[in-house]
Amino acid sequence: MSKERGLLIVLSGPSGVGKGTVRKELFSQPNTNYEYSISATTRLPREGEEDGVDYFFKTREAFEALIEEGGLLEHAEFVGNYYGTPLAYVNETLDAGRDVFLEIEVQGAAQIRKKAPDALFIFLAPPSITALQDRLEGRGTEPADVIARRVAKAKEEVEMMSLYDYVVENDEVHNACDRINAIIKAEHCRRERVEKRYIAMLKGE
Amino acid sequence: MSKERGLLIVLSGPSGVGKGTVRKELFSQPNTNYEYSISATTRLPREGEEDGVDYFFKTREAFEALIEEGGLLEHAEFVGNYYGTPLAYVNETLDAGRDVFLEIEVQGAAQIRKKAPDALFIFLAPPSITALQDRLEGRGTEPADVIARRVAKAKEEVEMMSLYDYVVENDEVHNACDRINAIIKAEHCRRERVEKRYIAMLKGE
Repeated sequence: MSKERGLLIVLSGPSGVGKGTVRKELFSQPNTNYEYSISATTRLPREGEEDGVDYFFKTREAFEALIEEGGLLEHAEFVGNYYGTPLAYVNETLDAGRDVFLEIEVQGAAQIRKKAPDALFIFLAPPSITALQDRLEGRGTEPADVIARRVAKAKEEVEMMSLYDYVVENDEVHNACDRINAIIKAEHCRRERVEKRYIAMLKGE
Repeated sequence: MSKERGLLIVLSGPSGVGKGTVRKELFSQPNTNYEYSISATTRLPREGEEDGVDYFFKTREAFEALIEEGGLLEHAEFVGNYYGTPLAYVNETLDAGRDVFLEIEVQGAAQIRKKAPDALFIFLAPPSITALQDRLEGRGTEPADVIARRVAKAKEEVEMMSLYDYVVENDEVHNACDRINAIIKAEHCRRERVEKRYIAMLKGE
């Protein structure tokens, strides 16, 4: 029987929502059973950084060659340096039956959605939504322009979440982590995945 | 803002798989936050059983009237007595924003799938699948007819699971419970559900 392919898990959300903090907490847990996707970059290694551990360090030419040949799941340029997700590493890990976890900006997530539609997309939502909700439900003690600005921001965020499978509110880091772990565990029980395994087994694969 | 409707959770699976044991374990946990759906029946109360707690006890006439008026999510007859799931209790609990948990035979689950397609259907799968897999993968130490019988049964079970959203292998009761709790937690984070709440909030509902 062939080994079940791993899940590609993409965590994203608006900037400032706390994606990095949640990701660090997830990987500090003793029972994390997914691999962190290592990015490629053209920036120089800092002291103590290792190639293939912290980043795949590339020259600008090598990085652009990767872009050309479709070797990146997504990429972007910040402050003169390229950053991107190498497809080969992700595919090798998934093929080995291990889940891959990616924490990424919304623009990168949108690129991945197009290339890997069967990945699991989790949107980390700001905790202020609840606060906003409470305020809107209250008796108008905030000035109208503040409410309007918050509503405008919330509307933008609602539109951003429409490409995602799950929305996790980051009210507390440990709650957000619990929800993300539950989502990953649940996804492994989805009938489509399990049924495929049963059918393959019955066929003696 | 209107309260979010609860989830209807339907746990089913082949007879003998351990549905009752898993359900009892789930409801013995201190943090269970879903309601057990109380069945209606025409059998007489046993000592200590309370109407509206253990069952809704009905006369045969009252039960048949419920069937007539579409007041049951599903029903069946065993050994001369009717058993069924009253729609009113389920709907009231869901409308109050609480999840309802139903543990039920596969025939009943199939009836519910038709009436409540947005419910969450969890198939509890027998642990022997793993054993079967090991055997099939082994070097044919079992007689061919035994293997054939097991494969036939597994095939039946695969066909039964096709109506379900999730498949939980009951390898160990506590593992099965962990998976079911993860599924329920994850379902509450599904974008379609959360987005609706955000949109309702933005409309000031």
